[in-house]
Amino acid sequence: MAHQQLPDRLPSQRSHTPPGRPGGSSPADNGDTGTSTSMNAEPYDATPPGGGTAGEVLTRYLHERAAAFLRGLSLRGENEAEADALLRGSARRIGGVLHIYGPLTDPGWAEPLRAELGWLTTTLGREPQYAARLARLLDALRRLSVSVEEQEAVTVGGPPPPAPSGGGPLALGAARAGALLERQLTLARTRAHSASLQAMGSARFHALADAIAVLVSDVPLAPAAAAPAASVMPPLAAQAYRLLADAAAALPLHRAAHPYNADAVQASLGADLTADLQDAPWHQVRILLRLSRYAAEVSRPEGDAADRQRLADAATVLGRHRAAAESASAVATAARTPRIAPATAYALGVLHADQRHEVEAARFAFSRLWQPAVPGPRGQ
Amino acid sequence: MAHQQLPDRLPSQRSHTPPGRPGGSSPADNGDTGTSTSMNAEPYDATPPGGGTAGEVLTRYLHERAAAFLRGLSLRGENEAEADALLRGSARRIGGVLHIYGPLTDPGWAEPLRAELGWLTTTLGREPQYAARLARLLDALRRLSVSVEEQEAVTVGGPPPPAPSGGGPLALGAARAGALLERQLTLARTRAHSASLQAMGSARFHALADAIAVLVSDVPLAPAAAAPAASVMPPLAAQAYRLLADAAAALPLHRAAHPYNADAVQASLGADLTADLQDAPWHQVRILLRLSRYAAEVSRPEGDAADRQRLADAATVLGRHRAAAESASAVATAARTPRIAPATAYALGVLHADQRHEVEAARFAFSRLWQPAVPGPRGQ
Repeated sequence: MAHQQLPDRLPSQRSHTPPGRPGGSSPADNGDTGTSTSMNAEPYDATPPGGGTAGEVLTRYLHERAAAFLRGLSLRGENEAEADALLRGSARRIGGVLHIYGPLTDPGWAEPLRAELGWLTTTLGREPQYAARLARLLDALRRLSVSVEEQEAVTVGGPPPPAPSGGGPLALGAARAGALLERQLTLARTRAHSASLQAMGSARFHALADAIAVLVSDVPLAPAAAAPAASVMPPLAAQAYRLLADAAAALPLHRAAHPYNADAVQASLGADLTADLQDAPWHQVRILLRLSRYAAEVSRPEGDAADRQRLADAATVLGRHRAAAESASAVATAARTPRIAPATAYALGVLHADQRHEVEAARFAFSRLWQPAVPGPRGQ
Repeated sequence: MAHQQLPDRLPSQRSHTPPGRPGGSSPADNGDTGTSTSMNAEPYDATPPGGGTAGEVLTRYLHERAAAFLRGLSLRGENEAEADALLRGSARRIGGVLHIYGPLTDPGWAEPLRAELGWLTTTLGREPQYAARLARLLDALRRLSVSVEEQEAVTVGGPPPPAPSGGGPLALGAARAGALLERQLTLARTRAHSASLQAMGSARFHALADAIAVLVSDVPLAPAAAAPAASVMPPLAAQAYRLLADAAAALPLHRAAHPYNADAVQASLGADLTADLQDAPWHQVRILLRLSRYAAEVSRPEGDAADRQRLADAATVLGRHRAAAESASAVATAARTPRIAPATAYALGVLHADQRHEVEAARFAFSRLWQPAVPGPRGQ
């Protein structure tokens, strides 16, 4: 198949998991939050934008990501999870970079490709999301059922604590809630897996893989790409950052910086859409943050290590925000299951509020991380 | 009756609610947390301890509190809530001060009186506690059912929001949970009220009131009370403070100072006693804090306004801690009601976790308030 002919000049092709693993997410990363730290620490071997035209810099980056994508594809028979993470990570990066540096590429080619990449990352992302959500919720249930002392006993290497605090109706409810969530999220995960397999076998996917394979050798550039990278790329990256900064500034950061403001939990018993409306601007910032990080990966201005670290930390925090928000809504869905026992429903209520507090905690962490750098009266 | 013969020299006897109202709690204070700010702001007309023997200073304080107690008693026919708050506030102060300055009084007289005062404050305290708990929980349910935007609309004076977010199963559960809590806590409150009335009519109470009436004219002092107040009272107050400081230092303040540590919510689904075990040391500090405040009211060293304010703030915070902890356990009790609907149980679970987070928030506030003043490596 065309998409398995990797170009010779990519050294990382020789091994499936090269130490530097350019462009791929680590297997532990579900590829969803875009926060793999290995991505930030990884040595980046493109010359800085000063060293060529914008087209050269962009092409070099896209080549590498496309090669990572194809490597993910060939890895699929061996380690599906790792392969999918590699596919998602590179697809997301290619799509993001084509968006940020849009004026440098042929729009008639880039736009449809971006749409297909979006379809793929969404489709492949569902299964690991359900898996992570279930793990997160079962962890939280354990945490809610075991006392601090018992946890400390575990931490200092004492004997394992007795099964969740010796029963009682609450512990029973927690166990049942866990079983219910496990059943529902495992079912969702299995369905997502089937959907992934179906997508990977589809003509739509093969066409996308062929388009990526073309990207390894040739990127359809716009005339603007002939200009020096140093003159055209930084303004585009800055624009992406400005969108991020504006969206972040519009968040209720001042309020979120007050611990225990109880904002995020407010919607818990309200209309179903309230939480979504409240969370949406934060999710939007998470996406803009990812774009800014990809932009920096390509154009990479000098001396921005601290700034990159800050973006990476902020992305981690907003990834947690989203995971908690989506976990909370999975719990709310489970609570609507007909004929559940009151003890189960009670445990789900506690768990829901707990996850909404994790949402609030993530907002607090983000506001602490972000606010000192916000331009304006505070930063002056 | 003997206990209604107020001594002539108390000017505040002339009106039922004198502006300074020495020794009484304000009616808004449920008399339970001991945090009435009017108590701190009130001009205290005893001469500082330097001005007499310890016996004189102590007698003056006890006279005033005893007079306040008797005033509360005579007020009972008119305003029961205010009268009870006055009775509780002065009984608590007399008991606390007899405890702290124990070596200055006749133990054979003070010990049984303290026990009776404890019985009275506990008995009278229950009704306002249940009332406050219900108000707190209904407020929390409202907060959990209404979105931030709706709340802001109310705050800026817009039209009142529609009844909790237009229904939905969650809102219905919240309404039912509210009705259940209202039923249970109103019943508890009614019972507590009957118990109060019964106690007030009992021979036991009349004996106590007579003992207090004696206190207005005569305090049985120990020989140590003949020493100058400045030499014997401050060490006793310092000892009370040392007990407080030690107990506070033994709290996990360092952990509590990290917002969103999720410690307090951990016990939510565990064995029923876990939360009690976790909360008990904090409740103990609340009581020691109250004793230290009463000690300061009597011996009143010069220039301690800031310190007193800190104690008052800490008491407020720990009062919130206790209110939230007890509200959470009232919710857990309600959740054990047989045959409740799952939606009701779910809302109760959310509410329980919310109150446990309020517990955590109070611990956070206390640790922030207390830690800078803790002697040790941090303070040096």
